[in-house]
Amino acid sequence: MTERLVVIGGDAAGMSAASQARRLKGPGELEIVAFERGHFSSYSACGIPYWVGGDVAARDELIARSPEEHRARDIDLRMRTEVTALDLDRQRVRSRDLESGAEEWTGFDKLVIATGARPLRPPLPGIDAPGVHGVQNLDDGQALLDSLGLARGRRAVVVGAGYIGVEMAEALLGRGFEVTVLNRGEQPMATLDPDMGRLVHAAMDGLGITTVGSSPVTKILTGADGRVRVVATEAGEYPADVVVLGTGVVPETSLARAAGLPLGVYDGLLTDLSMRVRGHGNIWAGGDCVEVLDLVSGRERHVPLGTHANKHGQVIGSNVGGGYATFPGVVGTAVSKVCDLEIARTGLREKDARAVGLQYVTVTIESTSRAGYYPGAALMTVKMLAERRTGRLLGVQIVGREGAAKRVDIAAVALTAGMTVEAMTALDLGYAPPFSPVWDPVLVAARKAVAAVRAAG
Amino acid sequence: MTERLVVIGGDAAGMSAASQARRLKGPGELEIVAFERGHFSSYSACGIPYWVGGDVAARDELIARSPEEHRARDIDLRMRTEVTALDLDRQRVRSRDLESGAEEWTGFDKLVIATGARPLRPPLPGIDAPGVHGVQNLDDGQALLDSLGLARGRRAVVVGAGYIGVEMAEALLGRGFEVTVLNRGEQPMATLDPDMGRLVHAAMDGLGITTVGSSPVTKILTGADGRVRVVATEAGEYPADVVVLGTGVVPETSLARAAGLPLGVYDGLLTDLSMRVRGHGNIWAGGDCVEVLDLVSGRERHVPLGTHANKHGQVIGSNVGGGYATFPGVVGTAVSKVCDLEIARTGLREKDARAVGLQYVTVTIESTSRAGYYPGAALMTVKMLAERRTGRLLGVQIVGREGAAKRVDIAAVALTAGMTVEAMTALDLGYAPPFSPVWDPVLVAARKAVAAVRAAG
Repeated sequence: MTERLVVIGGDAAGMSAASQARRLKGPGELEIVAFERGHFSSYSACGIPYWVGGDVAARDELIARSPEEHRARDIDLRMRTEVTALDLDRQRVRSRDLESGAEEWTGFDKLVIATGARPLRPPLPGIDAPGVHGVQNLDDGQALLDSLGLARGRRAVVVGAGYIGVEMAEALLGRGFEVTVLNRGEQPMATLDPDMGRLVHAAMDGLGITTVGSSPVTKILTGADGRVRVVATEAGEYPADVVVLGTGVVPETSLARAAGLPLGVYDGLLTDLSMRVRGHGNIWAGGDCVEVLDLVSGRERHVPLGTHANKHGQVIGSNVGGGYATFPGVVGTAVSKVCDLEIARTGLREKDARAVGLQYVTVTIESTSRAGYYPGAALMTVKMLAERRTGRLLGVQIVGREGAAKRVDIAAVALTAGMTVEAMTALDLGYAPPFSPVWDPVLVAARKAVAAVRAAG
Repeated sequence: MTERLVVIGGDAAGMSAASQARRLKGPGELEIVAFERGHFSSYSACGIPYWVGGDVAARDELIARSPEEHRARDIDLRMRTEVTALDLDRQRVRSRDLESGAEEWTGFDKLVIATGARPLRPPLPGIDAPGVHGVQNLDDGQALLDSLGLARGRRAVVVGAGYIGVEMAEALLGRGFEVTVLNRGEQPMATLDPDMGRLVHAAMDGLGITTVGSSPVTKILTGADGRVRVVATEAGEYPADVVVLGTGVVPETSLARAAGLPLGVYDGLLTDLSMRVRGHGNIWAGGDCVEVLDLVSGRERHVPLGTHANKHGQVIGSNVGGGYATFPGVVGTAVSKVCDLEIARTGLREKDARAVGLQYVTVTIESTSRAGYYPGAALMTVKMLAERRTGRLLGVQIVGREGAAKRVDIAAVALTAGMTVEAMTALDLGYAPPFSPVWDPVLVAARKAVAAVRAAG
């Protein structure tokens, strides 16, 4: 008997799950129907800033697998088709063809929910004016690119100084705009501790990007032509020919909520380790619509990142296809850049540690990416948190130039393994003058952390 | 009562030990006398190829701390003074001032042996001819640089295709020489498996470096002026205006041997985890003169690397100074480059695994350093070994361009933690298009290794 798998969402998590399930089960065993309300499947949303900035020439380079390619693998991917209801009792989904308006029910034996995230668009006056753009999907990216061409002048305002905000600042700078980033918090990159965020702030200043902290937007004013003209904040008014919103996302779980599926404190779906929705034997969920276990804090978090979505899809597809795989959780690794400034973090920030009752020490060191005497050696600052008494590594943040970001992987693996900072000082990391000082910056931080743990008693 | 610490060897391990001991104990508690037979203290031997090649402008940039700086920290560092005998019964060392010839005995309460390694200089006819150079220390580097100026033509031959050999090939290329590397083995970089060495070979060809495998040198012929002219091998004769020997090193342990201290199969001193020489309560040893425990194979190895020497010194100094530290061992990480080709390895090669009775699977994948669509994405090849049945990671080798080498650190930490390749597939590594594909190349290899372990049964 052929079972039917229905997948809601045609991007990373959903289509990875479909593809992996198809690898394990042929069309005679498993029929796969996938619904995607947008125009594109399996694309890299993370690549949008680089397309907007001109580093990536064409939109289609961001598409990993087109609908036709999925269909050639016997996945019935229905584009521009939105799932509007979930009927768990009768195991079916209701969908609407967004072109024709036609609706229908499709039954399922197994269901994958990969509905992603939706942007947090604050309900401000003027937020929907022409010239104000989100950068959530490829259509958004194209609209923004078109808008850049229409802009009267070259003043761009980015709202929000998180990953998307700083990446879009680079992109707009690359397009010749004068860029102002307006930030609700005091320092950019709230995913870092404020002392590390301050380094990002200073570096952005150096790149010619104006970053204004503590400036929540109150309204967006338009000109006579209806296009955006000024962004007003509690801190002042900023002229703008184009505005990009990098104000975060929340899990897109309205269907799941209506169907009574379990959601966490961040409104993300809750799953078990096999990515099965808790309490539901034949429903899986993955990607930006779920919460994941943070292995360091022991709490669920919402971490919308393509790399997790792909892993979730892989795990779901294996389990749906009769194999076995789990997603144990995350340690909170993220890397980013603004021009030549690299920004990385993993594990807990100070406030995360406090929130779960952990006592900790912190150390901050400066070192270089290569031997000090080797050409191109670039400064980096490494901050490390270790648990008081046990010395267990809790988190690392790195801000620097070339070679800074991916060094955080050392700490990501050490966190996963539950290493102490003392154990880290003995790590046998790659050393040669073009690649590292004789003590890698992460080891320098670990050595100082050992001393701090001892001193804290 | 003031104790006296005697340190034999004024480079990385010895002077790190002395400096760390001094941090913990002032001159009123601990007198420190250090002997160095050369002209330089605490220098980066690993940096010599880059000085010879011109990336590093001046010799003194390679000196981390001069004799005067050590002396300013109350370390009685005696340069150009060779220790000629070790009298363990009477706890004293005999030294000779190489300038004046004066000899004397110096008593010790604690002793650190950091005598380093000496080059393996095969006893071939002509090996001592002018124009034939080792690159072991700064004097060698200066002699080679002088010799490059004196060379009649621009043909350089490098004997040996290990780390030093390939790095010197780059350096000589940088100085405008036509470079031939003569290698005893079939492929360069015997620290890699031959299939990965083949990639290095091909890349060196592409860089214009001729690499001749299976060509052990039989003699070196000189011209009428006495300078080197031709290198003869079993495979043929190669004209040479200058010759650089990269034929490896062995532990310099003649003093230790004469004193009856325990040596291993590679002639390196054997220590316990605190770097104390086995069976000797007041003698420590570290750096290139010791053998270290390979944590993956469980065997002792000789791994002459500055990064280990510095760690040894740190551990020894802590213990000598009344603190406590250990050096648990290595996993065999090494990184190198030839021009823009990056080469990295950690853990066991296939023959290492076989030698200790491990059954394993191997996988090799190609991926890129950045998202495929991001400018500068460079190909890399990752080979991974995992134990049969358990799936425990045994080793990783990487050959590629920018961003390849330091990725090996992910595997180095995973090896230290004893991770399986299955656990590795869930690692939360830094992802953003400028830094990695959505699946980091190491994760792509791990996924393939999981399948290979399963298939091997």
